[in-house]
Amino acid sequence: MNNFDYKNETHIIFGRGTQSRVGELTKEQADKVLLHYGTGSIKRSGLYDEVIASLNEAGVEFVELSGVLPNPRVSLVRKGIEICRRENIRFILAVGGGSVIDSAKAIAMGVDSEDDIWDIFLQGKPTLEALKLGTILTLPATGSESSVNTVISNDEDERKVGYGAPPLRPVFSILNPELFFTLPKEQLTYGASDMMSHIFERYFTNTVNTDLTDALCEGALRTIMKNALILRDDFNNYDAWAEIGFSGYVAHKGLLGLGRDEDWACHAIEHELSAIYDVPHGAGLSVVTPSWMKYVMKENLPIFVQFAVKVMGVDGSFREQEKIALEGIRKLEEFYKAMGLPTTFKELGIEEDKIELMAKKATRIAFGQERQLGKLKKLSWQDVLKIYEGCCK
Amino acid sequence: MNNFDYKNETHIIFGRGTQSRVGELTKEQADKVLLHYGTGSIKRSGLYDEVIASLNEAGVEFVELSGVLPNPRVSLVRKGIEICRRENIRFILAVGGGSVIDSAKAIAMGVDSEDDIWDIFLQGKPTLEALKLGTILTLPATGSESSVNTVISNDEDERKVGYGAPPLRPVFSILNPELFFTLPKEQLTYGASDMMSHIFERYFTNTVNTDLTDALCEGALRTIMKNALILRDDFNNYDAWAEIGFSGYVAHKGLLGLGRDEDWACHAIEHELSAIYDVPHGAGLSVVTPSWMKYVMKENLPIFVQFAVKVMGVDGSFREQEKIALEGIRKLEEFYKAMGLPTTFKELGIEEDKIELMAKKATRIAFGQERQLGKLKKLSWQDVLKIYEGCCK
Repeated sequence: MNNFDYKNETHIIFGRGTQSRVGELTKEQADKVLLHYGTGSIKRSGLYDEVIASLNEAGVEFVELSGVLPNPRVSLVRKGIEICRRENIRFILAVGGGSVIDSAKAIAMGVDSEDDIWDIFLQGKPTLEALKLGTILTLPATGSESSVNTVISNDEDERKVGYGAPPLRPVFSILNPELFFTLPKEQLTYGASDMMSHIFERYFTNTVNTDLTDALCEGALRTIMKNALILRDDFNNYDAWAEIGFSGYVAHKGLLGLGRDEDWACHAIEHELSAIYDVPHGAGLSVVTPSWMKYVMKENLPIFVQFAVKVMGVDGSFREQEKIALEGIRKLEEFYKAMGLPTTFKELGIEEDKIELMAKKATRIAFGQERQLGKLKKLSWQDVLKIYEGCCK
Repeated sequence: MNNFDYKNETHIIFGRGTQSRVGELTKEQADKVLLHYGTGSIKRSGLYDEVIASLNEAGVEFVELSGVLPNPRVSLVRKGIEICRRENIRFILAVGGGSVIDSAKAIAMGVDSEDDIWDIFLQGKPTLEALKLGTILTLPATGSESSVNTVISNDEDERKVGYGAPPLRPVFSILNPELFFTLPKEQLTYGASDMMSHIFERYFTNTVNTDLTDALCEGALRTIMKNALILRDDFNNYDAWAEIGFSGYVAHKGLLGLGRDEDWACHAIEHELSAIYDVPHGAGLSVVTPSWMKYVMKENLPIFVQFAVKVMGVDGSFREQEKIALEGIRKLEEFYKAMGLPTTFKELGIEEDKIELMAKKATRIAFGQERQLGKLKKLSWQDVLKIYEGCCK
C-alpha cells in the first residue's frame, strides 16, 4: 500500500425530498449565487421551480446561467466567469449532472484568475483558490458532486481536457434518487458505465497489499451492475436508484483509490472520442474499456483474474489464468450489451481513419508534446492506437 | 435505504514516516497547543522525541498533559480543561490510541462550556463548538481519529458514558502503521475486536436495500480478520498493519452506516463491563458480541445468514437458515479464540452476581431512568440480563 493523504469535506445530503434543503444550505454559504444548469430538463421535471422556491424562501438572490451541454464547453464557462465578476458572485449552485457541475467548477476556478481559463486547463496550472460551489445532482455518473475534478471541451480545437484541484470539491451536494426517475433511459447506462470506469481506473493497479480497497472496489462494482440491471427493467425503482446514486458518489469520492497507483488511461483514451465525435462519455468508455483490458491484461494477470472471479463471478480452473481473465472481460462486455451500451466503434459511428490522429492527440504527440497514458501499463501513442484498433472489430 | 446526511472532513495522512509532518500540520491550526498523551509508551518508542522535534521546528509552543489511562477518566479531562483555560490554548494534539483521543475530545468540548463536563456526558447536552484537535494514532482500534465520538469513564460512580457531536471530529489524523510495531501484542487483538464491532453495529440492521454498504462492511470485516491473523504470527508486518489501520479508520468514519439504522447495543452492553471491571473494551466486546448475536438472530435471520456466508465463509444448505447463522457465530468465536480474545465472563474475571446490576445500569434503570438498547432488537434490562447470562457459560 502506498502512503496517502485524504480529505473529502463535501457534505452529502441524500434521500427523498432533500432538494427542499437547498435554500437553507446555500444561504449558509452566500446571499447571492450563480444558478447554473443545462438545457431545460430541470424545468420540465419541476425541479427548477422547487429550487427557485427554496432559494427565495431562504432569501438567496441568484443570477441564472443555463445552457450547459453534455461535454461542457469552455465558451459557456467564459460567460459564467464574466457574470460572476460583473455581479460580484462568490458561490455557484450547480443543478444538473456531471456536465453542469464540471462547468460550474471551471467557472469557479476562473473568476479570480488572471489567466485564460482554457490555458489553465491546457497547462495544468495549479488552482489554490476558487469560488465555492454546491450541487443538486440530477444524474449519477461522473462523481463530480464530491470530486475535485472537472472535464471541459473546446469546440474550436476539438479538445477535451481534464483538470483537478482541491478547492474545486463542492461544499455540499444534494442527491435525491427520486430526481433520477425523469432521466432519459440511456443516461442510466452511460452513468453506470462511467462510475464503473472510475472504479476500474483505481482497481487495476500494480500496487500490492491493497486488501481493503480491493474489497471496497469489488463490492461497489457488483452493486452498480446488479442495480443497473434492475433499473433497466424497472426504471422508477427508488431503491435501485439509491444504490446507483450512492455508488456513483463512493466510486469517485477518492476513498477507493487510497494507497493505490491509479491508472486513468481509459478516461484519457475515451476523451478523444468525445472531443471529436461528441459521443456520451459512458458510451465511449464501454467501447474503450474491454479493448484496453485485453491489451494490458498480461502486464498483471492476477488482478484481472481477481476481477473475473470476485466481480464478474467467473468460475474455472485457476491453472488457466488467462482464460479466466478473458472470461471476466467477456462477461463485462455481456453486461454492457445487456444494458444497451456499445462495445465497438462502429456503433458509435467512429471511422477507422481518425484513430491514428486520436491516438496522437491522446498522448499529446499531435501537439508537439508527449505523455504516456496509464500506470498499470504505460501506453505510448502506438499502444493507444492498438487499443483503438481493438475497438474496430 | 434511509435518507442520510454525511460529512467527514478529517484530513488523513497515512503511511511510513508521516509523523514528521505533525509540526507543519499543527502550525496551520495554532501557535500553542495542549500536547496530550498516555502513560509513557510514546517516550519509550521514541515517538515523543520526534513529535517534540517537529513541533519545535515548526515553532509550535506546547503544554503537556500526560497520564491518560485506558478507559480515560473524567478527572484527567477536568485537569486538561483547566490547563487550556489558564494557558489560553485553542488546539489539542492527541498522541496515542483511542483513549488519548477520546480524552482530548472531552477536554475540547469542556473548555468553553459553563456546564460540568461529566454533566454534559450524562445529560447528552449538545456541543455546538469545541476546541479543534489533531491526532497521531498509535493504536488502531476505536476509530476515534476520524469520528465524532468519545467515551469517558468516571471512577467515582463506576460509569462509562459515550458522547458524540460534529465539532469533535479531528481536523487531521496521522496514521503510520510503523508506529504500531511497538504495541503490546494484546492491543492488536483488542483493536481488531473493537473495529469489527464498529462494523457489526452498522451491519446488523433491519434496514433493507443496503447493497452497497452491506458489501463495504463485508469487505472491511474480511480484511480485518485476514490481516489480524497475519499479524498474530508476524507482528512487524507493515502491510498487514496498514490494512488494519486503514480498516479501523474506514470502520468508524461514518460511511459504512449511511442509510442504515445502526444498532450499538453491544457497545452499551460492553461499557458496563469496562466501567466496573476496567476490562479492555475489545476484550469485553469479544465476550458480549456472540452472546448478543445468538440472542437476537431470530429477529432477522437473513442478515445473520448473509454474515455467515459472505463474511465467515460458511457453506451449507440455505434451507437451514438457523444452522448457517449459528455456524457463522461459531466461526466468529473461533476467530476471537485464535486471536487469544476471551469469549466468556470467566476469562474476564466477571462474577455472575454483578450481572443484574450491570443490566440495570446499561439500560439506566439503576439511575431511575429507562432506555432500551439497540435497534435490530430493542433490548430491555431483562434482555440485557439474558445476554450477560449467555456470557457466563
